[in-house]
Amino acid sequence: MQTTRLTLELIRTVDESYPIIIGNDLAKETVELASHPDLVDRRVAIITDSNVVKLYGAQLEEAFASVERETNTFVFPAGEASKTRAMKEQLENQLIDAGYGRDSLIIALGGGVVTDLAGFVAATYTRGLPYISLSTTLVGAADASVGGKTAIDVPQATNLIGAFHQPKAVLIDLDRWVTLTDDQIRDGLGETIKQACIADANFFDALEDAFVTRGLSVAEFVRDDEIAELTARRNCLIKRDFVMSDVHEGNRRMCLNLGHTIGRALEAAMGYTMTHGACVAVGMNLQARWSVEFGYMTPEEQERLERLLLAAGMPTEIPAGVSVEQIMAAMTHDKKAKGGAIRFVFQKGIGDVMTFDNGLYARPIEQSDIVDFLRRQKERP
Amino acid sequence: MQTTRLTLELIRTVDESYPIIIGNDLAKETVELASHPDLVDRRVAIITDSNVVKLYGAQLEEAFASVERETNTFVFPAGEASKTRAMKEQLENQLIDAGYGRDSLIIALGGGVVTDLAGFVAATYTRGLPYISLSTTLVGAADASVGGKTAIDVPQATNLIGAFHQPKAVLIDLDRWVTLTDDQIRDGLGETIKQACIADANFFDALEDAFVTRGLSVAEFVRDDEIAELTARRNCLIKRDFVMSDVHEGNRRMCLNLGHTIGRALEAAMGYTMTHGACVAVGMNLQARWSVEFGYMTPEEQERLERLLLAAGMPTEIPAGVSVEQIMAAMTHDKKAKGGAIRFVFQKGIGDVMTFDNGLYARPIEQSDIVDFLRRQKERP
Repeated sequence: MQTTRLTLELIRTVDESYPIIIGNDLAKETVELASHPDLVDRRVAIITDSNVVKLYGAQLEEAFASVERETNTFVFPAGEASKTRAMKEQLENQLIDAGYGRDSLIIALGGGVVTDLAGFVAATYTRGLPYISLSTTLVGAADASVGGKTAIDVPQATNLIGAFHQPKAVLIDLDRWVTLTDDQIRDGLGETIKQACIADANFFDALEDAFVTRGLSVAEFVRDDEIAELTARRNCLIKRDFVMSDVHEGNRRMCLNLGHTIGRALEAAMGYTMTHGACVAVGMNLQARWSVEFGYMTPEEQERLERLLLAAGMPTEIPAGVSVEQIMAAMTHDKKAKGGAIRFVFQKGIGDVMTFDNGLYARPIEQSDIVDFLRRQKERP
Repeated sequence: MQTTRLTLELIRTVDESYPIIIGNDLAKETVELASHPDLVDRRVAIITDSNVVKLYGAQLEEAFASVERETNTFVFPAGEASKTRAMKEQLENQLIDAGYGRDSLIIALGGGVVTDLAGFVAATYTRGLPYISLSTTLVGAADASVGGKTAIDVPQATNLIGAFHQPKAVLIDLDRWVTLTDDQIRDGLGETIKQACIADANFFDALEDAFVTRGLSVAEFVRDDEIAELTARRNCLIKRDFVMSDVHEGNRRMCLNLGHTIGRALEAAMGYTMTHGACVAVGMNLQARWSVEFGYMTPEEQERLERLLLAAGMPTEIPAGVSVEQIMAAMTHDKKAKGGAIRFVFQKGIGDVMTFDNGLYARPIEQSDIVDFLRRQKERP
């Protein structure tokens, strides 16, 4: 019999634009955004963690109640350990039990873990619900809340199961930063300094001024209105520009992964006992030294980066207890079949990234060369 | 402090077009489609069920091997009971253990359960992998494989957790239809007759000719090359047109849910002991009677539909053991907060659907009126 060939034509213009709002006490703004004609008839489900709910839950519920809009708040234990399939299932079951259907709106209230997990719940509940991120941490501003990447972790790897699901709005509430621990602030500073390194020399200067010249502690940093607002704004703008140019991480968005190839492997090799941001700091510093070897940066530029990281209390070397073999095992975990080279993004001086053959932002390096480089890093005096 | 407002502009033209191929022995065609420049460098993972793997697994693996392309086949137990979070997790873990990363391509080989489950695995693995559906059942042709709807069931509802994730290609292999049981064929006939009712009077005539005039059994039906090919082609074309006009089920795609509001509730009320297609047949027939009451269909048109369903061996009445209360409980399960009306799609004669206020394809009906209508159906002589 003859074979029949049809084409399903699905060429669409998709507008997933959304506002990013940076300021203080944004509960009311959140309610206003949730009053958009597309969202106003939806049932509101607030998803947050056990820390943030204490600081902010009642305030957000009251803001919705003041416009006579009913909410339910779903709380999970704070921490990366909650980014699991089991926790996603638990939240879904709670939504089902409370009768939430296709006509729902999720508010993700919290830091990066909340936006990752609640965003992923939103991505797959009834095949996709709209959500708004009300971000309360520096990590949220620097990385998690802008860009639509949602995910959970599995025992074998972080963020392996997830979706690209753009929020309807992102709000960065600076008032909540003062409640962060030093470690949480540094977690966000890793990504923050990375953003400056890949895209914004002036922002790097401002961070250098705060930590190196003025000698601010991280606690003082988040309490300094001017630098905090600048940090939120520059982070969002840099992330926005990369996401706008490459929403599904085809090439340019990869630049956001500067320091992450080593950083993520280190994170896994250490069993997630060091924050993501701290691991990225180590990866970024090591790769800056590599950039110097390759002639992409001057030694002075690398030293400026290392000085800034140290002034902010960030690690800059592979911790003593971690071997090169452990890092390599983690780095090659999902690359079994391919063997060969692994791709790295490299910064070009400060505030720019290298481009390689065919306009690619990542350069492949043979595993033997990576091992050699990491060994030399471990053997530094 | 001042509030800062930015906009992340994400207006993109998205081309998710894909070919639909209907024919015999399509393993080689599948390999050719997987050789597209965007797919050729990807590692191939075949996901299938315990029935289909026996009939078709080796043939597909050999087709890939003949072009020196390595595959791994991941098999789950056949049946709707496999569309669970646990089975998704198991498949993901098998992919992880076999080293599959972002550079993978999923082949969903099988019927509706396989394309729903494997498609959803593809939707969230590393935030989205490309997949090709090689569909082996009438259900696949009629419903599951075209349109990009993927999902799993949860104890409380079918298809509640999922994603819209368009395949890169859909192949409908008619040779496999002869391996289907009568119940599996009827499962697909429910959706097939529904497609004819909402969009194609000529196709309805052809089905009527096959079952009523010629008196074919369902087994003879799938073995009749001409009607089988027509059924696959018309199903795909109708589905394609609805999907193209409304990819995310905003309004027009809802028409595909004719008979489903009652059908799905019946399915749940019966604990999924009757196939989806059979339940849709009951829902469709009942709603046709309602259409007659509302003046949307003539009594003769409803009788033609009922005669066709009966000739194909499909149920047309609420089974004796199921109460109106059970159906209503299932129908209102995810609508707790809203109370009020429930929306129904109605056919307009044969081959068309009604439109209501504001161009909507669904008409809201008060729950008390639904109960009244269903009671009258139960009390028919």
